[in-house]
Amino acid sequence: MKSAIPGFLATGVAAAGISAFAQTSQTTVDRTAITMFGIADVTIGYGAGSTSHLVQLYSGGNATSRVGFRGFQDLGGGLAAGFWLEMGYVLDTGLGMAGNTNNQPDGATSSNVISFNRRATVSLADRWGELRLGRDITASYRNRQDMDPFDNNGVGTTEPQVESIAGPTSTRASNMIGYFLPHDLHGFFGEVQYFLGESISGTGLPSSRDGTGYAGRLGFTVGNFAMAAAGSKVSYARTADFGTVRVFNIGAAYDFDFVRMTIGYYRDSVDSAPPVTRKGFVLGAVFPVGQDQLKMAISSYGTREPGDPATRKLSLGYVYNLSKRTALYVTGAYVRNSGGASVALNGASTAPNESSRGMDLGMRHNF
Amino acid sequence: MKSAIPGFLATGVAAAGISAFAQTSQTTVDRTAITMFGIADVTIGYGAGSTSHLVQLYSGGNATSRVGFRGFQDLGGGLAAGFWLEMGYVLDTGLGMAGNTNNQPDGATSSNVISFNRRATVSLADRWGELRLGRDITASYRNRQDMDPFDNNGVGTTEPQVESIAGPTSTRASNMIGYFLPHDLHGFFGEVQYFLGESISGTGLPSSRDGTGYAGRLGFTVGNFAMAAAGSKVSYARTADFGTVRVFNIGAAYDFDFVRMTIGYYRDSVDSAPPVTRKGFVLGAVFPVGQDQLKMAISSYGTREPGDPATRKLSLGYVYNLSKRTALYVTGAYVRNSGGASVALNGASTAPNESSRGMDLGMRHNF
Amino acid sequence: MKSAIPGFLATGVAAAGISAFAQTSQTTVDRTAITMFGIADVTIGYGAGSTSHLVQLYSGGNATSRVGFRGFQDLGGGLAAGFWLEMGYVLDTGLGMAGNTNNQPDGATSSNVISFNRRATVSLADRWGELRLGRDITASYRNRQDMDPFDNNGVGTTEPQVESIAGPTSTRASNMIGYFLPHDLHGFFGEVQYFLGESISGTGLPSSRDGTGYAGRLGFTVGNFAMAAAGSKVSYARTADFGTVRVFNIGAAYDFDFVRMTIGYYRDSVDSAPPVTRKGFVLGAVFPVGQDQLKMAISSYGTREPGDPATRKLSLGYVYNLSKRTALYVTGAYVRNSGGASVALNGASTAPNESSRGMDLGMRHNF
Repeated sequence: MKSAIPGFLATGVAAAGISAFAQTSQTTVDRTAITMFGIADVTIGYGAGSTSHLVQLYSGGNATSRVGFRGFQDLGGGLAAGFWLEMGYVLDTGLGMAGNTNNQPDGATSSNVISFNRRATVSLADRWGELRLGRDITASYRNRQDMDPFDNNGVGTTEPQVESIAGPTSTRASNMIGYFLPHDLHGFFGEVQYFLGESISGTGLPSSRDGTGYAGRLGFTVGNFAMAAAGSKVSYARTADFGTVRVFNIGAAYDFDFVRMTIGYYRDSVDSAPPVTRKGFVLGAVFPVGQDQLKMAISSYGTREPGDPATRKLSLGYVYNLSKRTALYVTGAYVRNSGGASVALNGASTAPNESSRGMDLGMRHNF
Repeated sequence: MKSAIPGFLATGVAAAGISAFAQTSQTTVDRTAITMFGIADVTIGYGAGSTSHLVQLYSGGNATSRVGFRGFQDLGGGLAAGFWLEMGYVLDTGLGMAGNTNNQPDGATSSNVISFNRRATVSLADRWGELRLGRDITASYRNRQDMDPFDNNGVGTTEPQVESIAGPTSTRASNMIGYFLPHDLHGFFGEVQYFLGESISGTGLPSSRDGTGYAGRLGFTVGNFAMAAAGSKVSYARTADFGTVRVFNIGAAYDFDFVRMTIGYYRDSVDSAPPVTRKGFVLGAVFPVGQDQLKMAISSYGTREPGDPATRKLSLGYVYNLSKRTALYVTGAYVRNSGGASVALNGASTAPNESSRGMDLGMRHNF
Repeated sequence: MKSAIPGFLATGVAAAGISAFAQTSQTTVDRTAITMFGIADVTIGYGAGSTSHLVQLYSGGNATSRVGFRGFQDLGGGLAAGFWLEMGYVLDTGLGMAGNTNNQPDGATSSNVISFNRRATVSLADRWGELRLGRDITASYRNRQDMDPFDNNGVGTTEPQVESIAGPTSTRASNMIGYFLPHDLHGFFGEVQYFLGESISGTGLPSSRDGTGYAGRLGFTVGNFAMAAAGSKVSYARTADFGTVRVFNIGAAYDFDFVRMTIGYYRDSVDSAPPVTRKGFVLGAVFPVGQDQLKMAISSYGTREPGDPATRKLSLGYVYNLSKRTALYVTGAYVRNSGGASVALNGASTAPNESSRGMDLGMRHNF
């Protein structure tokens, strides 16, 4: 059959002896397997504050819902190439999640649009490490997430994550050139990243480096102990609301077998006029219960603004694993505001200095 | 190779011994097969009315074009988990189809955006039935579609489908919690669904339940006979144009071997000021012709407004199956308006009380 | 397991004996393999002009980043059916690329939205050729691209491609009906296409055919020689800026073994008031260097407007193939403007009659 209609469904130009005429990159491809993967996670979430409460079905109470494609090619001589495309989606509606074109506030895209907003990278790696280009999470976010027993998902997410003031690149950055240390470094691990705001030069404004920045992370692991520090700086023109962002965080973890403890410290600053600095901490614990997990975290994030507004949070969760890929989970959280803060949970709202509580009951399925 | 660059292209945090430090849900996944599926359906459609006509290439004259991913995991003990993600797309342009965030008119998304607008669900099932969470078609739509020989696709689609006044959840609802009866119930089948509008409380408005509703369906099959009834109620604040929607429909089918007959009755009401009620019926027949199908339907949908505006439709189609997965089809339809109605077919327009006719010539390929 | 929960995760209607009641096209599908394919291509691009310069990470310096799904079904008797869905994406941000609903300027969609913008087609083919319906590249673009050693990608792209005045269907058209000659025609190849603007009739405007047009291409190959000509005409209402577009181009290629030479001539006109005509040429050479490639092109595109504005370009590139699927590449280009033209490279800007230069350093991975 294939020889009967040879050019059919090849690239259009293959309809005839066009191979002598032009070449498209695709005709010479020797295909290899592509891995498709994803998560479908949905939660019945309840939030209550002093002024309103809300019940909703929402996505990603335990892990962000996603669909991804990735692949890997051994190039010989210890060299490898690969790609990773990962889209976030919202399971309760089937819609997408926001991306950002230029690491600047005006580059944010509609949250309804599906894109490879979580990761779009191509990599080259050998024994000296990995060069990774595209859109990815920032080194400072990776470190921050690693200290959160709730992994930045659901009502239990620790405060320095939920309230982060770090702007468009708090979690991810586009236009990134990254380098990761190789795996086998006697326990050391780390990465450096440089990302571009891509503003055109010659405008004569202080904002021509808006969205351009760098991030780095270094850590090590010895036996049951690991620790890592990360930092980033991203340039923005100074306004009353925003300016250059500096992030530093450091964390450590120890696995006592019956419990894995994590501790983290965070310092985020925005060089607006006047500048704002927020500091936070996380103390987390994950207790294995058979194949299940009991999770706890206390966290705080506050600022030195007038009144010292700050929010403290207690998070408690249980993950009941039906299999390695499928879990039911329940999470409860409580926040206490002071100094004029008014953080509320799961879409509720609360008055300044009032508390809020929330609960998640959900299901996660990895595929 | 894999051991030479072990952490490469694992999740970023796996670049080193980070496993003692944090856990991501993805590292412990034992993968299973994901099914990709879809339909590519394109039609040359012609419509003519008293004031204009239109020729166009459009998508989905026999079945809506779609791409989906779904998977299934046996959890042991009769328990299973699964996911289903299905995006609609328009084959003539490659663009997407509209979704809805909150089951309310203002939650509609751009029709150009691809999303998992057709279905985004995660399920847990055992012998007692299936719990299904996410975005899915409503029970009342499922029943309505089952009575339409043209399956709600193309110029032949029966009137109560085309002109439905049931608003944003006429076909699908987001934020849904559904339960399906198990398969093996001596011929009984059915489902109940509850879906959330997710408006925040405490606003003091009658609209705080906008988009919140429920739907249900119950049916049975005995030998060649089947029948089912469905209903739904979705709350909306009352305005001149819109209000709480109530849907009821009931249908039956009998397979006489040489023809499968369906009959359906529909009653949809909108509690606007003043309220609107529309009633409709469908009589359908599908004749197997070898491996092909000849389809016929007469349908009507009208209201008790001044003048009794109503539209009657005759639909006739032939599906020529090149294989089980690929078909050519031709459909013709004719509508007659009365009482001031002005329904036209395939993008044409017609004056009140004038008729319209349309034709589809298309190809469908399932994959 | 499957028999324990038979209806689970089938289409919703399969939850019970609904098969006697309705039929969905999907339940009778015998699945076949779907090929997923794609390209991840990212470039560090630098552009400099007389008024500004820019460094950016951008996508597709060697080949446009894409993800696609395609499939093929042998229908017996020499007949085959297939589909092809291909989305463009931007690797540096993970976002999408613009599409167009109606081949008209107002039908352009947001460049952030992922869709099957590159190709969405369903086909039927046999020994007499291929019938292809949906969205695809136009015949005149295919010919134009085939004469460009840089394949319309990156800073080296030849001038008649970059500056094309051919409007919304310069590259692709939606709502297309195409026919391709069969493969085995003693060296002849070609295609004809008709595409619809889908404006409704009866509006009484001269624009009712806006976006409707046709395109065709015919070529042949003998030994190491190939040549092809293509043309298209797309109707638009005449304004000061735009009007009916006519495109003609012709090219030839000869493979001297040590170098493959291409030559092309282009004539594009827009029937605006006053009308605009641009003519261009390309001379290209691709030298195989082991498994690598050295590419060169000189190109020009200009018009007979007052002052004869024109742009000449020199492009030079090297593709270092790490494997058949993975390549590193470097490209440099230089443009010289005259007659008031101000074309600049890679996002830079330059004053009229000033030059611009640019460079790409990138990596492409096919999967």
